[in-house]
Amino acid sequence: MTDLRDANAIVSFLRELRSVRRFRPGAIPRRVVEDILEVARWSGSAMNLQPWEFVVVWDRRTLEDLFRLEGYAGHLAGGAVGIVLVMAWERIEQETFDEGRVSERISLAAAAHGVGSSVGWFVRGGRDTAKKTLIVPPERLVRTAISLGYWEETSPPGRPKLRQGRKPFSGMVHEDRYGQGPPDGQT
Amino acid sequence: MTDLRDANAIVSFLRELRSVRRFRPGAIPRRVVEDILEVARWSGSAMNLQPWEFVVVWDRRTLEDLFRLEGYAGHLAGGAVGIVLVMAWERIEQETFDEGRVSERISLAAAAHGVGSSVGWFVRGGRDTAKKTLIVPPERLVRTAISLGYWEETSPPGRPKLRQGRKPFSGMVHEDRYGQGPPDGQT
Repeated sequence: MTDLRDANAIVSFLRELRSVRRFRPGAIPRRVVEDILEVARWSGSAMNLQPWEFVVVWDRRTLEDLFRLEGYAGHLAGGAVGIVLVMAWERIEQETFDEGRVSERISLAAAAHGVGSSVGWFVRGGRDTAKKTLIVPPERLVRTAISLGYWEETSPPGRPKLRQGRKPFSGMVHEDRYGQGPPDGQT
Repeated sequence: MTDLRDANAIVSFLRELRSVRRFRPGAIPRRVVEDILEVARWSGSAMNLQPWEFVVVWDRRTLEDLFRLEGYAGHLAGGAVGIVLVMAWERIEQETFDEGRVSERISLAAAAHGVGSSVGWFVRGGRDTAKKTLIVPPERLVRTAISLGYWEETSPPGRPKLRQGRKPFSGMVHEDRYGQGPPDGQT
């Protein structure tokens, strides 16, 4: 991957990942979901504890039950499949960080297959209900649901560009000390 | 990216990312670091709050100061450059998750350029000292440091394969309900 052409292709791919909340109908082949989970399985984690399990939700009724729960996982309604993360709930700070890492990998692996994704959270009581819905043991944490589906060809409505914009580099990147720009002459 | 050949190349790339803790000497060009941060800048975050800033640490003495701090960022000592994440510290749960997402992107963008990386955390007093070292305002959180450097050609010693192994799929992946495997005949 040190070849510049490859680097550019990968970097473009990484930079272009956007969350997709509106999906077109269409089942995702099982081999694609398995491939995505294989990438997830190899994610890094603190002390390599791999504090995650995955519930793949294909069942339409279950997806609809989940999308109604308190939180931000309404996009599950339109997805072809949902992946719900089940966390060990032992070292909460590290696990929350690692959960972010593995979620990012799932979204990227999906995109590699042309599959859009959206990451959402259950909050408050939604977490307990999600756990009951999926028969997850009480000592585990259920917080994150990722919906997967093929994206609409057209740009989704109601998502103005600004919402997906990013802050500029200046003020976000500092050098050697906070509040310090690039030193003169440094290359 | 829907082409199967592309999908396989990207998926292999994602799956093969490993943390690298032993680097060979060699400066990383500024344009590569900027490219990595450009990928980071476009990471997704809760409500698109982008709760991160980045301190790029090129200065050798500063890297050495940081690697001695309480925590797991000793790998900074051997890196050509360190990226320290400065978080808004306003919505701690979401930010911890988003910090994991952006860290994963940084590692992947680095790997696309043939640059190895390792994600480490400052803990307890190490966080305050890191903040003082980098002159970060007290109301921000400094927790994660990512070291970047070209990796050694040979497999690093002291890292037996088992340490980098992963749990098997079975028991980690469930279908529709926790504890449930694939239903008969489902494709």
